[in-house]
This record gives sequence, C-alpha cells and structure tokens, in this order.
Amino acid sequence: MKKQVSIGIDIGGTNTTIGVVDKSGDILAEGHTPTLTNVDVKKYLDVLAKTIKETVAVAGSDLEVMGIGIGAPSSNYYTGEIVSAVNLGWGDVVPFVKLMKEYFDYPAIVLTNDANSAVVGELMYGGAKGMKDVIMITLGTGVGSGIIVNGELVLGHDGFAGELGHVVVASEGRMCGCGRKGCLETYASATGIVRTVSELIADTQIPSELRSIASDTITSKMVYDLAMKGDKLALEAFEITGKYLGKAISDFVAFSSPEAVFMFGGLALAGDLIFKPTKRYMEENMCYLYTNKVKLLPSKLPGDQIAVLGASAVVWKEVEKLNMQS
Amino acid sequence: MKKQVSIGIDIGGTNTTIGVVDKSGDILAEGHTPTLTNVDVKKYLDVLAKTIKETVAVAGSDLEVMGIGIGAPSSNYYTGEIVSAVNLGWGDVVPFVKLMKEYFDYPAIVLTNDANSAVVGELMYGGAKGMKDVIMITLGTGVGSGIIVNGELVLGHDGFAGELGHVVVASEGRMCGCGRKGCLETYASATGIVRTVSELIADTQIPSELRSIASDTITSKMVYDLAMKGDKLALEAFEITGKYLGKAISDFVAFSSPEAVFMFGGLALAGDLIFKPTKRYMEENMCYLYTNKVKLLPSKLPGDQIAVLGASAVVWKEVEKLNMQS
Repeated sequence: MKKQVSIGIDIGGTNTTIGVVDKSGDILAEGHTPTLTNVDVKKYLDVLAKTIKETVAVAGSDLEVMGIGIGAPSSNYYTGEIVSAVNLGWGDVVPFVKLMKEYFDYPAIVLTNDANSAVVGELMYGGAKGMKDVIMITLGTGVGSGIIVNGELVLGHDGFAGELGHVVVASEGRMCGCGRKGCLETYASATGIVRTVSELIADTQIPSELRSIASDTITSKMVYDLAMKGDKLALEAFEITGKYLGKAISDFVAFSSPEAVFMFGGLALAGDLIFKPTKRYMEENMCYLYTNKVKLLPSKLPGDQIAVLGASAVVWKEVEKLNMQS
Repeated sequence: MKKQVSIGIDIGGTNTTIGVVDKSGDILAEGHTPTLTNVDVKKYLDVLAKTIKETVAVAGSDLEVMGIGIGAPSSNYYTGEIVSAVNLGWGDVVPFVKLMKEYFDYPAIVLTNDANSAVVGELMYGGAKGMKDVIMITLGTGVGSGIIVNGELVLGHDGFAGELGHVVVASEGRMCGCGRKGCLETYASATGIVRTVSELIADTQIPSELRSIASDTITSKMVYDLAMKGDKLALEAFEITGKYLGKAISDFVAFSSPEAVFMFGGLALAGDLIFKPTKRYMEENMCYLYTNKVKLLPSKLPGDQIAVLGASAVVWKEVEKLNMQS
C-alpha cells in the first residue's frame, strides 16, 4: 500500500515553505520558493506548483498525496479565497483554492489562516493529541487564536471564528489596528508588550536600561533579554502582559471549557516569564467551575515547522470529512 | 410505521413538566407532577416514572419513544449526574440518568442544563432551524448560555462549557454569586437590572417612581412596567443593561462567529426596551470582521414550553449521535 501524505504550504510575506508530511507529522521533504508579490498571482502559482511537484518527488516515489493545505493571511476556509491581503498584492479577492485546482486534482485542497492551522497541527501531531476541546493562542506581532470544540475546528458561519485577539480586555483601553479600543492584541502581542514598556516608563520610576533606548526601536526581544538579566521594568512588563492574558483566558474558558489552552509564537518563547504570570492570573480570575482544571501549555510543535505542519494537518481533517460524507 | 416521539422533562424547583414531543416540535401530550424535594430521590422517581407513562399513554398508542431528555439545574451531560443542586435536596451527587434507566430502556436518556437544552430546542424547532452556529443567552434570575458550533452543542471537555454569564464585563465591578467581580450576570439579569436601578438612584438625579419603593422590593417586572410608562430612570436602566449585554455579545462573537445570537428569558420579554440598546452597543463595539453580520433575535419558542421542547430536542440530537456510532 502506498504511504499517504499531505502537503502543507505556508505562504509568508517573503518566502513560501512546502512540506510533504505523513500522518504522524514527520516532514518527509521540504521545499522553498520566494513568495512572488505584486504580480499576477498566476505567475506565482506556476512557480509554486513546480516546486510542490519537485518536493513531492524528493519525498519518495510510493506516495499517495491526499491533498494540499495552504496557510495564508486573510484567508477564508469556506470560500477558498484570500481576501484583501495587502502584503501579497495579488488583488482584493484571490480564489486561491480554485486556481490551485487547475494544477492539482487531489481530493482535498484547503485554505486556512495560521492560527487555525496551528491548532489543528497541535491536535494531530502535537501536545493536544487525544484532546477534543482546545484553544490555541498565537502571540506574534498580533494575537490570533484557533479553537477546537468536540474535535473540530471552530470556523463560524462565515469562516471568521476564533479572533480572540480582538476581545476587549480594557474598557477605553489602547487603540487597536481594528479601529476599536482595548483589544487583547494591544496588550498581549510582541507590539503590546513594547507599548506596556512605554506605559511603565511614563507611569513608574522603576529603573531600567529600556529608558535609554528610543521607544520606536524597542522590540519584544529586547524586553525579553533584559528581563532575563533581571531588569525590573522589563520583568514588570511581562507581569502585566500575563495579567491581561491570564484574565482574558479565564473568560475564554467560560465559552468552551477546554481541556487545555496552548500558547504559541514569539512571546510564548519567553517561557516562565510569560507562562507563570498568565497561569497565576488565569486561575485567580477563573470562575469556580473551571478552577485548576484547565492546562496552560506551550505548543509542542517546533516554531519553524508549525505553519507547514498545521496546514498539512488541515488536509487530514478535510479528508476525514470527505470520507464521512461519501 | 410508528410515529417517533421524544420525551422532554423540565425539573423545576416546585413543579416538573413532562412533554411528549414529535420531531417537528409539536407537544402531543403534557403531564405535570410536583418536584418532590428533600426526600429520597427514588420517591420522586417513582412518581415521575408513573406520570411519564401516563403522559405517553395520553399522547397516543402508535408511538415509538426514542428517549427522555431531562433539563435540571446543576446537571452534567457527560456524567448524567445532578451535582450540588441545593434547592432539590436529593444529596450532593445524584446519578439521575442511571436511576432513570432502572425505569426505562429507551435508546437515549440524557441530562442537560436549561440553557443548553434551550439552544438545541431553538435549533430543532425554533428560529435557529437551518443554522449551524448560534449562541443563546438566557436572561433570567441569572444569565446562562448555550452555544451551537457547527450544528453541535458545545459541552466542553467536562460538560461545563457555555457559562457566558460568568464572563467579566467590568473590571472590579459588581460582586457576583460565583465569588468574582463584574460578571455579566451581575448586570444583564433580572437581578442585575434591579442593581442598576439602585446605582442610578445613587448616582443620578433622574426623577423616578422607583425612588419611592424600598430597593429590596423592586423587581425587574416593575422596572419594565415603569419603563413602558416612560419612567426615565427605568428607561436608563434598560439602556445600561443593553450596553453591558451588547458589548459582551460583540466579544462572544469573536469566539464562534455565529449566524445569530438569540436572547430568551424574563428580560428578553421586554422586547425593544432591551433588544434596541443591546443591538446598538453590539454593533458599535463589534470588530469590523463581524459588523452587521450577526443577527440578534428573540427566541421563537414559547417561554412556557422552551424547557420541555429543549429537553426533548436533546434526545433527537443524541439519537443522531447513536446512529452515527452504530
């Protein structure tokens, strides 16, 4: 019998990564191609399709490819479209899945956003294996989320479910890119913690090396490095980030009562610095129904592979669904 | 062929209602028995079982009973237990489903709480028919919720999902029965609006008949009646209730992106008085992804039947699940 594999594709702003993945999450071959932006998308697709075929050939000869999972910004699972992805410059609405089907006729060709595919990856190959109710929070430049309820990805009626970065955690709080004030993303992201540093510089007299750095050059990585060296203001910035995050999670839990909440992305790599305060505030603010029941865990998937693994995992889920329908 | 029916049971603090319901939501026969509290639960079950059999007999002779759905406070779908229901006085943990199985051997005997069964009822027989992603918020003495994602009830890993009444909507806000501060329930319930009246009496100089009533005798019904007569303070109390509720809903939407949010229960009966401000604040605070996409609707099921209909609907869902497994 041929070995079943799925192809995971991570379309980043600069590079595209392709992985041929087996059912246990082993990447059999990996390919790369630049993400051609601001061109006719078909030019990019020609190159992408060629690279996919080459990568599959490298992975082995006796493979049955079940499908392609594509992780891309501003993408909609239901329509298969990438919508208003300014950075890509392929136009307002790109019917990506439809276009891919002109190159491949695999049973499943699916498009999702990164947080959604990350949680499916965690469920299939990572720390959420065997769980049925999980929330994944991605702490990157922004805050994203992917939610699994009863073993299935929560997509919502229009494909836009799972935007926990845009839950308001501070009434009349920080201005968010979405036009509202006080979204979780403005506190618990890489940019959020830098804003917290600026606030602490203004509001407190805590001494810090950060005071001698121009605020628009401060990065979350700097805050992390200084916190690790014991800089009190940097440590306080993590404490505050954990407070907003922990309180927010204690509310999210009232929605789906998950077995575990996973955190992933740049800020999550800070380890105890972010997990400890988050866990403490989460338990402190948790409704008694959920106290000490919900695990708070780091993703078990490697940061540089989760996008490709997640996208490939969505294919297995899709194949499962197709089999149930037939 | 025999007509398939399911039995819905609503266990209230004083009375128990039994309905024999067909698949379209018609109640073929209804039975009643007092809820015997503070007794050996088997005494109650003897009477209940007898009343169920009598009610089925009244409903018709050519029926195939698919199961029994029981709606009761503090009940857990997974374990089939009623836990710490102080008002019932049957002990700390009552294995209700197990006990019912000593009387009946229908394929499905299931236990749920009222908000969960209400949303399944709405989905099967009511205004959510044909929808797959729905949130139901019950505005009674407290605030409960039932959530449908992808056509399925969200139960969570332990059966306690959907407690949106205990999402914090005001940091350092009102003391809640759950031990925390600022839960939605302390603002958007029948008791919440009465607390808002007290706050308005203290904080404003808005004239009102409510000022001449002892605060511990004010009810949400009084606030409603006075608002309908144009009492400015009562109207403002509804405005504030709608503000908290609308803002909260705009955050809930970021979780599951539902097609509609239904409101049900005492306060929801206030109609425009509560729906108008709730809708306004909901849209005002909604993340742009969801603006003007989510319907805010009153339940279409009659208030005095939703508990029995909902409990019976859960049986159909359970039968569906059993059929898929076999």
